[in-house]
Amino acid sequence: MINDTVIDIAKNLMNRRSVTPEDEGCQEAMKAFLSTLGFNNETMVFEDTTNLWSRRGNEGPVFCFAGHTDVVPSGPEDAWKTPPFTATEVGEFLHGRGAADMKGSLAAMLVATREFVRDYPAHKGSIAYLITSDEEGPFINGTTRVIDTLEARNEKITWCIVGEPSSTTEVGDIVKNGRRGSLTGDLTVKGIQGHVAYPHLASNPIHLATPALTELAQSHWDDGNAFFPPTSFQISNIHGGTGAGNVIPGELQVCFNFRFSTEVTDKQLIERVTHILDKHELDYDIKWTFNGQPFLTDTGALLDATQEAILAVKGEPTVLSTAGGTSDGRFIAPTGAQVIELGPVNATIHKIDECVKMSDLEQLADIYYGILVRLLA
Amino acid sequence: MINDTVIDIAKNLMNRRSVTPEDEGCQEAMKAFLSTLGFNNETMVFEDTTNLWSRRGNEGPVFCFAGHTDVVPSGPEDAWKTPPFTATEVGEFLHGRGAADMKGSLAAMLVATREFVRDYPAHKGSIAYLITSDEEGPFINGTTRVIDTLEARNEKITWCIVGEPSSTTEVGDIVKNGRRGSLTGDLTVKGIQGHVAYPHLASNPIHLATPALTELAQSHWDDGNAFFPPTSFQISNIHGGTGAGNVIPGELQVCFNFRFSTEVTDKQLIERVTHILDKHELDYDIKWTFNGQPFLTDTGALLDATQEAILAVKGEPTVLSTAGGTSDGRFIAPTGAQVIELGPVNATIHKIDECVKMSDLEQLADIYYGILVRLLA
Repeated sequence: MINDTVIDIAKNLMNRRSVTPEDEGCQEAMKAFLSTLGFNNETMVFEDTTNLWSRRGNEGPVFCFAGHTDVVPSGPEDAWKTPPFTATEVGEFLHGRGAADMKGSLAAMLVATREFVRDYPAHKGSIAYLITSDEEGPFINGTTRVIDTLEARNEKITWCIVGEPSSTTEVGDIVKNGRRGSLTGDLTVKGIQGHVAYPHLASNPIHLATPALTELAQSHWDDGNAFFPPTSFQISNIHGGTGAGNVIPGELQVCFNFRFSTEVTDKQLIERVTHILDKHELDYDIKWTFNGQPFLTDTGALLDATQEAILAVKGEPTVLSTAGGTSDGRFIAPTGAQVIELGPVNATIHKIDECVKMSDLEQLADIYYGILVRLLA
Repeated sequence: MINDTVIDIAKNLMNRRSVTPEDEGCQEAMKAFLSTLGFNNETMVFEDTTNLWSRRGNEGPVFCFAGHTDVVPSGPEDAWKTPPFTATEVGEFLHGRGAADMKGSLAAMLVATREFVRDYPAHKGSIAYLITSDEEGPFINGTTRVIDTLEARNEKITWCIVGEPSSTTEVGDIVKNGRRGSLTGDLTVKGIQGHVAYPHLASNPIHLATPALTELAQSHWDDGNAFFPPTSFQISNIHGGTGAGNVIPGELQVCFNFRFSTEVTDKQLIERVTHILDKHELDYDIKWTFNGQPFLTDTGALLDATQEAILAVKGEPTVLSTAGGTSDGRFIAPTGAQVIELGPVNATIHKIDECVKMSDLEQLADIYYGILVRLLA
């Protein structure tokens, strides 16, 4: 594989049925490739998850490519135009599960690394890979545990590119330089069950809760900032009732989620929600699940190198964004690393007939190479 | 059975496993009894339901005993102290399914009728029975269809006693002289499904609905009147959400119920709800189910006779009430009949070990007899 093209390496990885948490030899193939280039490979298995930490060089600064070898299930294979686990060229595109999310990115990273190491064998600092096979799953035994291991031995990442498909129309048109935080609340509002014909003997938790839910839904949490939209609150699930039309239920279940900017903290949001619930004199239980702090890389050498490399390859400046869902970047950024996400167009990810434009993968390898040159040459 | 005691007749009926819509020969036994007393029996079968319309006399006014031969299921028979379908004396009480709801009432009606016809063979007007076997079920093919048949031939009931167990501590302590109306709304509030990370691309129906639901729950519908408590609105069921914590649902389902007094009509309630939903600019569908108009018998010969008969037998005045759930009286009252409900203590109805005090059934027969005397002697 060591002399293969980006497209051949992508096909090699895509032909492996590595549905989360399976790796199906992807990491072994990457290890063989990287050891040829002088990397030291360290496999970290946590429960059902295989992770790879691979590094070339012992000095800082440490540039890290982060990514995952696992993919989401194909869905009904009959619905695909080409077999999902047989990478197939269709015109300008490469079709198959993982083409865009994110085996294509892994291939581009490997080729960029090979070319850079051949051109600059005595580069500054270190190049590293942090690869997991559970990014699409429960993300319990993947990146977060590798980071725990590195932190325990005080091994730091300076700059990190996560290969998530950040682009919308052409490769490099969008770079994610941060992500919002995510906080989930599971609320149970308690009342007293009874018959609708005898409401004075019951206490309707739906009636008790709706004023507080209205206030939560209409609250202004912050104004966001130059990099983040305002913090948003959304109720995703609400359930109350026995099914019978003549029974007042005893409980109401509400699940809501915050996507929050760097202008507030999870602690402040919890305090404000608690204040509103208490003000409405509700009898309730609440369970909070904290899914990740917001992170932001708003300046620094990584962002400069990335913007310059994209402009050089594409002839167009990139756009910075913090929109969208979470990624494993949330586990890496808290260590102090500068983190951005840069990968191919995300239009088909997780869908039937996932595909990527082959020239986009080649350009992505050129961009990754340009970033390495600007940071470590 | 014609010379049996109230208790023996009650046992005869209770030993039949007439779970809705089964009658198990109860009505045949009643027909034999009534025909001996000069009644003309008319069985009306609608779908799975057997009904009896039986009448003695061709003139008005028409006094009618209304009731049902069906019972609710026993639940686990092992949990009963005595076999649910074998009427068993336990001290002062008669145990078994239907003891209080309402085979005991039927036995008291029959004995009262027998004694009255023997004492006053040339009574005024007519005595009638309207008996169904689907009161505990869907109430589609029972009393409502018998009433339709009578209305079609312009056969009117003047006074009606429904034998439902109205009493709380001693027989006759409470008489139901009306019932609230019942109106159910099944509301679907529409939004646009989306990802919680992209709320600007979605429209959360839970957020849209809670202000309107709050206004509905806090609205003052009327003040009630001397006979009815204020109209009440209760949300019985609310459901929205896909189960996933990161998805804004596309719809919210809400089921609510009005129990309403004679101070408003179903039409007015529908108009007011529609006004509130429209004011909040909701996109919604609503299905209304009308379960019955409120009815009230606040004066008249039937109420006078009932109050006097109870006072004579018990030595205590009765209390009038319109509280509680619906009964088949709602189908009879709209024809212009005066309707009240009078039966034994309801503490054990629908429960394991349903029972009735035997002396209460004997007193109930005396009260029914006293009412017949006051109205038709």
